[in-house]
Amino acid sequence: MATIGILGGGQLARMLVLAGTPLGQRFRLVDSAGDACAAQIAPLVQADWRDFAALEAFAADSDVVTFDFENVPAETAEWMAARTRVFPNPAALSVAQDRLAEKTLFGRIGLETPAFAAVDSREDLERAVAATGLPAVLKTRRLGYDGKGQFVLRAPADLDAAWQALGGVPLILEAFVPFDREVSVVAVRSRTGEFRHYPLTRNWHAGGILSASLAPLAGDPALEARAVAHARTLAEHLDYVGVFALELFVHGERLLGNEMAPRVHNSGHWTIEGTGCSQFENHVRAILGLPLGDTAAIGTSVMLNWIGELPEADAVLREPRAHWHDYGKSPRAGRKVGHATLCGDDPRELADRLERIGAALGRNEQVAPVLAALRAS
Amino acid sequence: MATIGILGGGQLARMLVLAGTPLGQRFRLVDSAGDACAAQIAPLVQADWRDFAALEAFAADSDVVTFDFENVPAETAEWMAARTRVFPNPAALSVAQDRLAEKTLFGRIGLETPAFAAVDSREDLERAVAATGLPAVLKTRRLGYDGKGQFVLRAPADLDAAWQALGGVPLILEAFVPFDREVSVVAVRSRTGEFRHYPLTRNWHAGGILSASLAPLAGDPALEARAVAHARTLAEHLDYVGVFALELFVHGERLLGNEMAPRVHNSGHWTIEGTGCSQFENHVRAILGLPLGDTAAIGTSVMLNWIGELPEADAVLREPRAHWHDYGKSPRAGRKVGHATLCGDDPRELADRLERIGAALGRNEQVAPVLAALRAS
Repeated sequence: MATIGILGGGQLARMLVLAGTPLGQRFRLVDSAGDACAAQIAPLVQADWRDFAALEAFAADSDVVTFDFENVPAETAEWMAARTRVFPNPAALSVAQDRLAEKTLFGRIGLETPAFAAVDSREDLERAVAATGLPAVLKTRRLGYDGKGQFVLRAPADLDAAWQALGGVPLILEAFVPFDREVSVVAVRSRTGEFRHYPLTRNWHAGGILSASLAPLAGDPALEARAVAHARTLAEHLDYVGVFALELFVHGERLLGNEMAPRVHNSGHWTIEGTGCSQFENHVRAILGLPLGDTAAIGTSVMLNWIGELPEADAVLREPRAHWHDYGKSPRAGRKVGHATLCGDDPRELADRLERIGAALGRNEQVAPVLAALRAS
Repeated sequence: MATIGILGGGQLARMLVLAGTPLGQRFRLVDSAGDACAAQIAPLVQADWRDFAALEAFAADSDVVTFDFENVPAETAEWMAARTRVFPNPAALSVAQDRLAEKTLFGRIGLETPAFAAVDSREDLERAVAATGLPAVLKTRRLGYDGKGQFVLRAPADLDAAWQALGGVPLILEAFVPFDREVSVVAVRSRTGEFRHYPLTRNWHAGGILSASLAPLAGDPALEARAVAHARTLAEHLDYVGVFALELFVHGERLLGNEMAPRVHNSGHWTIEGTGCSQFENHVRAILGLPLGDTAAIGTSVMLNWIGELPEADAVLREPRAHWHDYGKSPRAGRKVGHATLCGDDPRELADRLERIGAALGRNEQVAPVLAALRAS
């Protein structure tokens, strides 16, 4: 039995606790919010990331420390790593926290990316646009997630507004790439070096936030093998330990690296019911050096994200092979408050299920692109 | 969101919390033991069953109260029911707590039982043995579980020893029936009256404690239908709300009622991974009046109980479709400290898996009867 400390107490921490408890592990959380939703099922130290007095006791109490929140300050991660084992390691976390370092690394390991350039001044922005062309996306290098800290540039006239919105912190300009599909590889590497990956997952976003995921993605094993090879190289290069997600754009035969999430990932939530060993259980196994679990898909799964507020649960609860996940959070615009996963033995059975659920919840729009993909497969 | 109070904080409470949390529910526990294993994931009120001051605050804090421990005093259950909603209802609990009341009810609803007689004195015991014949089992009417409070009578000479061991509390003598198989129906009835049942499960005991379960039990739909009909009648008769188990002996074409457990049951642990909605989730749904979930088996499952101490986890962790459950309890002879569930798409795949696990854990003896049943199916 180990005590696992988690920095951050949101839904990812909550699902880690739910998955790790049957393995006999105990959990402790740090979060600045007293109502962090994982604190319903694990003891919480309410503290700021730089409250080192509070973190001292937390570190002493934790055999291993990991992350629910990827934007823990590098200083805090390093401070923690000097006191107890921290996975993923702070250097890997630090690369994933910085879009420029991340994209530079992607290039170094042979993973193509959209054209990009660092932007630290108004003049840099001009130069960068000249290099990438328009449209392009100006993003903060750090602390961005779920579409926050981004500005889409469509015409030269947008530069001033973009600079006004985001200027003053380190930025990156990325070419706006056309793509056919967004996919992710959720993979896991253990303290022992063992590596496994879940099937390639297709993702749909709305307003910059993940809306739905579908896995496994039928039809292109060569593409999947290339994506997985990149994920593996990345993990080995960073000596990464734990679960991570590599988000990619697919354009024809091209695979472009978008970003790496150094933690369990929303596009892997379907693995709770859709595989023999979820991303959450495998993360716990990986950071403890236990054997990794089975990542093969059982049938086909669709995950629907609930953003802002939960729909009525009844239609999902009544449907066979449909699973409800309420994170126990209060509703708020743009907030991830829950998800549902629908499973089926084959894509047709699942498509019928998804169509019923979409109609019953008044979520036809959210469901439509996934349904089209399922019907086409 | 409801707050669910659980009387008792053992592994059943722990698995209820794990299953109910994704439904957005919160939990509170009462247990006299400060180290109750469910307290690792839910707030615990450490109190005795008759500490009504402590229970008062617990009742006020709980929208619904249910049981991890079936031997909560009837007085406490009734006291609680006067303050908040309690499921199952105290009268149903009370019947299931008393072997004589339980077997009498079985007879009333048309479920055959082994011959039995109440024993309140040494003379009663003589009369009862004359009626049931030998061998027979003398049992305490109350507070027995996992083979505790039982004495097997094989010859008239055993009567004195049996009386000495158990005399002084209300007893029941039951004829020792030969049987081919032990089976159970785990079923659930909601506050709305909705009823569902899991597939018939075959059980093996060792030393009076459940050792292994196998489900679904192939081959005899008529037998299953009869068993389920009895479970349903029983639930409706008691206006039972929640999950319960009806344990039965199968002897040729005969079905004999052994006992009813008024709670989630060890022979239903396989439903966590072996069905779309586990007994734990369905119990939570039932006591909240939510729609009941899918009870159909996904493939075939075997549950192996870990009694006294856990074996090494590695062989199970390495095996696909094998699931480890460590209850976070300290080892102690005869104590249920964990279980593993092995799943497979078909009995043959599962048999191979079970054989590998049995060999790797040095548990060939525990696995052998299940393996034989799987190979024969």
